Amino acid sequence: MSSIYSTLERLQITLPPIAKPAAAYQPYCVSGSMVYLSGHIAKKEGAAWVGQLGLTMNTQEGQAAAKSVAIDLMGTLQAACQSLGKDLEAVKKIVKVTSLVNSTAQFTQQHLVTNGCSELLAEVFQAKGLHARSAFGVVQLPMGACVEIEMIVELES
Amino acid sequence: MSSIYSTLERLQITLPPIAKPAAAYQPYCVSGSMVYLSGHIAKKEGAAWVGQLGLTMNTQEGQAAAKSVAIDLMGTLQAACQSLGKDLEAVKKIVKVTSLVNSTAQFTQQHLVTNGCSELLAEVFQAKGLHARSAFGVVQLPMGACVEIEMIVELES
Amino acid sequence: MSSIYSTLERLQITLPPIAKPAAAYQPYCVSGSMVYLSGHIAKKEGAAWVGQLGLTMNTQEGQAAAKSVAIDLMGTLQAACQSLGKDLEAVKKIVKVTSLVNSTAQFTQQHLVTNGCSELLAEVFQAKGLHARSAFGVVQLPMGACVEIEMIVELES
Repeated sequence: MSSIYSTLERLQITLPPIAKPAAAYQPYCVSGSMVYLSGHIAKKEGAAWVGQLGLTMNTQEGQAAAKSVAIDLMGTLQAACQSLGKDLEAVKKIVKVTSLVNSTAQFTQQHLVTNGCSELLAEVFQAKGLHARSAFGVVQLPMGACVEIEMIVELES
Repeated sequence: MSSIYSTLERLQITLPPIAKPAAAYQPYCVSGSMVYLSGHIAKKEGAAWVGQLGLTMNTQEGQAAAKSVAIDLMGTLQAACQSLGKDLEAVKKIVKVTSLVNSTAQFTQQHLVTNGCSELLAEVFQAKGLHARSAFGVVQLPMGACVEIEMIVELES
Repeated sequence: MSSIYSTLERLQITLPPIAKPAAAYQPYCVSGSMVYLSGHIAKKEGAAWVGQLGLTMNTQEGQAAAKSVAIDLMGTLQAACQSLGKDLEAVKKIVKVTSLVNSTAQFTQQHLVTNGCSELLAEVFQAKGLHARSAFGVVQLPMGACVEIEMIVELES
């Protein structure tokens, strides 16, 4: 088994099937060797994981939400690879992660929350998983979700 | 007439000329076969369309604003194509839409607001108009605008 | 001396060495001829430049912060170029700037704040420094920083 899939197995992570978007867009778009993944909101039991950092959630809970988004993003990324007759082994580089953290005006640990996503990507994809990133606080997210993360990935051509 | 321009005519949409940016940047930047369009704020009668979702505007009004931004974005995209001796028929794919919705901390329908833009792009560009997307709530926008949308587009090479 | 480095010297700007990220990500990621620079927060004396526009900082102070971020971004960009055996002369185009301004719900001059970054890029890189851009207000930023800016740059191949 490849290192990516054996790592997922060791971590007992099962990638979900691609989710149906909540609105008029696609979960991902392939352009040349790049895959643009739509913003994925955190989910709990199939619905939006509602919460705001600094109000109803703390940093550790936010990290768990960000980690769950990373798993959903990898599920979508796998589907994108499969649409090209490939799998996650085709990933050349996680290029960019952008993380929107539903925050009060007092919460300043968006970077630590987002580590919940970044650290899992690094563990699964190793050097290929190291990425550029922005993380910031947003006043609210679709359906009240606590975290939304989008990603740009380069595939082997 | 091409399907894109006949659809615009059927919808009675006239694309505006490219707008002069309000600050020290360009309306778009071409890089290889990609066009990066700057964040376009919603406008009404030539000025910023001022408002905040959840306070002074409802979802339906926000959708109208997002639709108007889509028209302005298509005007800028057409100018980008023309700078290369082409027109909107050169669009290979609307790759990514990022939508910033001026929101209160209680408003959670940024995805529905943004459909005002996404649905028009899909109607005009058909399969080429289906895109990856992120939508989120921002605490405020330049000049008090209610919506700002940016876009990445791939052209036929 | 090249025009870029002579301009930096004339402006008495010394580019800083690349900063260690505050979390689990990289300062930049190279993908083909593109460099994606992570969101860089404004800093003062090595720590986060804490503040909120409309509350503890005015537009002019925000512009100074945005200008300081532009200098840090150029330092990181130079390091990215050096990792490829090049220097800032290898820049083909500053493609896209995204600027997150820590704002109250009343502050509406994010575009003017961001000019502090955009105008310096245009002065240093001239026509190559003209870029697409989005600027918007965020409710809070990592470590309480007043401004965070990310950038996409195309290098000569």
